[in-house]
Amino acid sequence: MEVTLRPDERIDQLSSQGIQIIQSKNVFAFSLDAVLLAHFVRENKRHKLTTVDLCAGNGAIGLFLNRKLGGQIYEVEIQPRLADMAERSVKLNDLTDRYTVINDDLANVNQYVPKDAADIVTCNPPYFKVTPASQKNPNQHLAIARHELTTTLERVVEQMSGLLKTNGHGYLVHRPDRLSEIIMTLEQHRLVPKRIQFIVPKPGQEANMVLIDAIKDAKAGGTKVLPEFVVADNHGQYTKQMMEILNGPTR
Amino acid sequence: MEVTLRPDERIDQLSSQGIQIIQSKNVFAFSLDAVLLAHFVRENKRHKLTTVDLCAGNGAIGLFLNRKLGGQIYEVEIQPRLADMAERSVKLNDLTDRYTVINDDLANVNQYVPKDAADIVTCNPPYFKVTPASQKNPNQHLAIARHELTTTLERVVEQMSGLLKTNGHGYLVHRPDRLSEIIMTLEQHRLVPKRIQFIVPKPGQEANMVLIDAIKDAKAGGTKVLPEFVVADNHGQYTKQMMEILNGPTR
Repeated sequence: MEVTLRPDERIDQLSSQGIQIIQSKNVFAFSLDAVLLAHFVRENKRHKLTTVDLCAGNGAIGLFLNRKLGGQIYEVEIQPRLADMAERSVKLNDLTDRYTVINDDLANVNQYVPKDAADIVTCNPPYFKVTPASQKNPNQHLAIARHELTTTLERVVEQMSGLLKTNGHGYLVHRPDRLSEIIMTLEQHRLVPKRIQFIVPKPGQEANMVLIDAIKDAKAGGTKVLPEFVVADNHGQYTKQMMEILNGPTR
Repeated sequence: MEVTLRPDERIDQLSSQGIQIIQSKNVFAFSLDAVLLAHFVRENKRHKLTTVDLCAGNGAIGLFLNRKLGGQIYEVEIQPRLADMAERSVKLNDLTDRYTVINDDLANVNQYVPKDAADIVTCNPPYFKVTPASQKNPNQHLAIARHELTTTLERVVEQMSGLLKTNGHGYLVHRPDRLSEIIMTLEQHRLVPKRIQFIVPKPGQEANMVLIDAIKDAKAGGTKVLPEFVVADNHGQYTKQMMEILNGPTR
């Protein structure tokens, strides 16, 4: 299907998932965080599956899950400009039968998807707290995606938990420097972290990203910490495992 | 100084720290967990330093900190047989001026070291919850060291926090499968995890140990997740970094 691009937009590909996606450096372009979170989600091809992606941006995570997940995928994005990009990317990939873009505050998500109805909720939320001292991007689109201006970790996790069925999976990508707060917030909202993976930019460096798979109303404990994932080698070249996630298995 | 060994005891060395330690496979022998926790503790040579090791066993962690820490070190162990081994290991290493072995329940630790008096508290507690189904070691000495029979994570962390001064460091080694509970328990007792390191038995495996450095009454957040530490290669041979911790830098 053909779609119209705005002047500042381009079409990028995630080859491994056969997905084309509308991007704009002026308002939003997906990052490795989205690619890695989608990769971290476990495959589930059930036809009746319901998945919700909160803080969807240009819809990257939802689209990257296209081959891995069955059923319906809802992408919730508060910014009209980004929701519109997501909508057009869905059309571009001929996925309108399975995808619904919801342009609203995630606080209103239950107007579209009822409580306790989702099997999977994913979220790549804004990472940074808003403090009087915090440097925010002067570009409002980017500032909202990076800073907790229109939502907070607490609210994201509350909605994630509310949407999920018992034993549903909530997948979150965030920053390790807030690990305690993330884990406490998940647990306070009946989400038990079961799989955690840390992302390391280069070998021997501290983690700069954490992926969490939490299960609603699960038995406490039993957390698995997966081997750390290294993005690039010491020369800044993507590792083999990173290349495969981007381009698919090498032949 | 010469000490008397019981028939089932032997003397082991931690070459890197120049320490000899009395062990017994029948009642207690230190493990890599103790070596790695001692290695994880930051150096602090202040003369007036006060350090407490809870669940001290045969005193391994305290003794391994001998060169790294100044001041007085208290080793708290509930089992008389193990406290006696710790006592004799202190003598064996001519460290009686700096070390005090306390043979008591850690619940009574403030009879010996006042509240808010310690700069550092270390602990390698029993890892396993006691449940009706849990398989406990028939050897009571080993069972108490491994299972929460005489103490619990909650009580260990409560005492750790009570002992520490503001900005004092609590160091804990534990199992990643209880990570959520560990972090919540620390935070509930005013201990903010600031450095976390996961220990991996072999490359590409899940972590089987976690080291945590928590600071009392610190500002929330700012947690650093260090590069994972790999103990052995795929053939089961200790890695270079593990060998150096055991034997000292290779020349």
